[in-house]
Amino acid sequence: MSKKKEFVRDITNIDEDFAKWYTDIVIKAELADYTDVKGFIAIRPYGYAIWENIQNYMDEKFKKCGVKNISMPVLIPESLLNKEKEHVEGFAPEVAWVTIGGGEKLEERLCVRPTSETIFSTMYSKWLNSWRDLPFLYNQWCNVLRWEKETRPFLRSREFLWQEGHTIHETAEEAKQFTMQMLDIYAEVVEDLLAIPVLKGQKTQKEQFAGAEATYTVETLMHDGRALQGATSHYFGQNFTKPFEVTFQNREEKQEYAYQTSWGSSTRLLGAVIMAHGDNRGLKLPPKVAPIQVVIVPIAQNKGNVLEEAQKMKAELSKKFRVELDDRSNYTPGYKFNHWEMKGVPVRIEIGPKDIEKGEVIITRRDTLEKISVKMEELAPKVEKLMQDIQENMYQTCQKRKEEKTTIAKNMEELEKNLNENQGYVKTMWCGSRECEDKVKEVTGAPSRCMPFEQEHLSDTCVCCGKKADKMIVWGRQY
Amino acid sequence: MSKKKEFVRDITNIDEDFAKWYTDIVIKAELADYTDVKGFIAIRPYGYAIWENIQNYMDEKFKKCGVKNISMPVLIPESLLNKEKEHVEGFAPEVAWVTIGGGEKLEERLCVRPTSETIFSTMYSKWLNSWRDLPFLYNQWCNVLRWEKETRPFLRSREFLWQEGHTIHETAEEAKQFTMQMLDIYAEVVEDLLAIPVLKGQKTQKEQFAGAEATYTVETLMHDGRALQGATSHYFGQNFTKPFEVTFQNREEKQEYAYQTSWGSSTRLLGAVIMAHGDNRGLKLPPKVAPIQVVIVPIAQNKGNVLEEAQKMKAELSKKFRVELDDRSNYTPGYKFNHWEMKGVPVRIEIGPKDIEKGEVIITRRDTLEKISVKMEELAPKVEKLMQDIQENMYQTCQKRKEEKTTIAKNMEELEKNLNENQGYVKTMWCGSRECEDKVKEVTGAPSRCMPFEQEHLSDTCVCCGKKADKMIVWGRQY
Repeated sequence: MSKKKEFVRDITNIDEDFAKWYTDIVIKAELADYTDVKGFIAIRPYGYAIWENIQNYMDEKFKKCGVKNISMPVLIPESLLNKEKEHVEGFAPEVAWVTIGGGEKLEERLCVRPTSETIFSTMYSKWLNSWRDLPFLYNQWCNVLRWEKETRPFLRSREFLWQEGHTIHETAEEAKQFTMQMLDIYAEVVEDLLAIPVLKGQKTQKEQFAGAEATYTVETLMHDGRALQGATSHYFGQNFTKPFEVTFQNREEKQEYAYQTSWGSSTRLLGAVIMAHGDNRGLKLPPKVAPIQVVIVPIAQNKGNVLEEAQKMKAELSKKFRVELDDRSNYTPGYKFNHWEMKGVPVRIEIGPKDIEKGEVIITRRDTLEKISVKMEELAPKVEKLMQDIQENMYQTCQKRKEEKTTIAKNMEELEKNLNENQGYVKTMWCGSRECEDKVKEVTGAPSRCMPFEQEHLSDTCVCCGKKADKMIVWGRQY
Repeated sequence: MSKKKEFVRDITNIDEDFAKWYTDIVIKAELADYTDVKGFIAIRPYGYAIWENIQNYMDEKFKKCGVKNISMPVLIPESLLNKEKEHVEGFAPEVAWVTIGGGEKLEERLCVRPTSETIFSTMYSKWLNSWRDLPFLYNQWCNVLRWEKETRPFLRSREFLWQEGHTIHETAEEAKQFTMQMLDIYAEVVEDLLAIPVLKGQKTQKEQFAGAEATYTVETLMHDGRALQGATSHYFGQNFTKPFEVTFQNREEKQEYAYQTSWGSSTRLLGAVIMAHGDNRGLKLPPKVAPIQVVIVPIAQNKGNVLEEAQKMKAELSKKFRVELDDRSNYTPGYKFNHWEMKGVPVRIEIGPKDIEKGEVIITRRDTLEKISVKMEELAPKVEKLMQDIQENMYQTCQKRKEEKTTIAKNMEELEKNLNENQGYVKTMWCGSRECEDKVKEVTGAPSRCMPFEQEHLSDTCVCCGKKADKMIVWGRQY
């Protein structure tokens, strides 16, 4: 067992320094690596395979709602970015500018897209004529750049991969409904695929997207009780369609500005998976999103027919699951156990000469580390059942944490105390003023997470100013 | 029929001005559109859906060969780009430079990737230790920028979407084999999916990729007889692994430089599909890659149960095919016929009250415009058969053109005459000198396409200098 201890010692203890533990996992589980340019990461095959699973799941759901994929230019002229006032104020400070192309200084500098509302709006104004053309339900999977000061793999990279959906509609009502429909897909992705329960609600005006009329969010809670914004969906009203002149002839044959939405989710979700589920042995992947669901480790693989049986087992299980057989001859089984635990593979199967004799194998669950002896002929259904159990158990573990770490505060002292002792979500009443929101952030370091859709009446007064309040809000320190 | 004529008149005649016909199709079939930045296009849903079909087909084949997807940074520091001499000379003149990030002038300017050999090599040198780690078989689907002077949608855009595969291997032999294996996949994509026969061969030193030891290509021939490079696969030897120090401990426990390949194909393939198959009615899509394989156009759709029957038919056919029902009430059937012909949908089904009475429908093939009457109960198998026939017929049409437009020339007069009369591929013998290759290009405007793998002995002397020659080469003017 000495090897295992050593290996574990290689990563920082999760409860001692969670931030350092996090970056250790990113590197050790081979999810991503640093590159020569600060804030730009290389997403390695294992990390990218998780992203592909998220993409496939989400893309199918988008398409079922009639969304179509397209591709817009990566560069945006400065004049376009400047068209919507709040938007440019929000994004201009953190863009990267291309100033030279083909050896010549450009007449107008071009920014690498930080998001593409401006360019979608420009093209929509070109493509839209009549109410009969609507809605436009378009999405793109691409890279964007935001020149963050502090960077961290997945969580806050200067470049990240994401999908950005942009739609325009005939009526405000329809656009609002679509905003919520997409938020529901995000909730499904995070809860069903990534096994992380969400808190759904509306962002305050302070925290909403630059240029939006309303921003809706799915919030998640990490191992240490800090929150992470999972994905957001925005309703713009006519904020962009007016300056960009996205008009259509309506049913009364009059010109009208279209109603717009956008919604995005990114490789940040990989950060959420790592931080919501991981432990001191490494990553812990929910079966539904795991690139490798089952790893087979042969014991004494050169003896008798061990390797042959392991190969047969792989062929059999591969019909239903994503399976890897680790038949490397230069590593011990103990090393391999650690390796695949670090990589968070949900189920490990050991097969050796004695197991074959008994017609049994040993299965180890990554989530509980429980070992189970299973008859060979019952293997496939048992693994299938385990996949469901592990997915469910991982969700429930997070759900329990969310419940434990959700508290109520009636005044600033309670709010600060709860956050300091417990992190997590703290529910309070709020008068709705920007002043109080700013003050809470200043005093506690916790921005507002959202005004949950499921409202409760905790008291009659604002947690900060003590004035009359009828809105419940949730606060929490964040990644 | 007056509407149809009008509609056709909307696009330039294919034999009068092929270049203009091409851009008309791109716009009219809603494949892509121009944007505010020269050389940057928006790929619209219909065009992007074709690209997605190409991606899915290709990605599956790559993965079967063990290739894994990853994501590398979009920005490359100038110092990295400069590390391989030929490479930087080839690409530096046409890159775009980011010089400002987050409001500050960068210490070192960063180019938006024109291709990623330098960055893959850098990361490979970090990740590679032992021969046991090899091969690395990685690919990325991404956007790249090349600041071309003359631009044209899909064919020559300043930004384009592509996949770039980058692999490193233990031996030169294995790397060379892999280069060819990927070329075979490209040939399959172009021939089997896009129904365009290819010419396979090796590029001359003049035409090969900047920094490569050998470049292999699949060449295609367009409607007007001009050639288009379909995709290329490169063997680098140790040209990059030496300057980037990509070394491993070999089986003899000595440090050795790895052997490298790269291979790429892009949204240019959409240009090939348009130009190889289209006609004066518009786009013509091979069924395998068509986003919509069958369009149902109801006739007198408000009469009786026409719309209901059309919907039932759609539901039935959708089990096997990608089907669209055009039930728009504000367009005539004639308009719809033109619309879907422009979009190149392989099969159109008309269903009206009389057809329902007779229990039959009219099917029109897009490739031959032939009309066929089919019994309702035989519809699905008939459509399936048609899909195969159309795919095959489109391939054969291109194959016939390729044969007709492939000629032989023994001297410069014949070479020039053949190109002027016929365009196409002209096969000649070649001494192998750069002087002769330059001269042929200068005199005829035709660069070399490749030295085909299937060599023939046409004569003993070079088409240009008349000296001894034992290599057959193919010339052709290009897009």
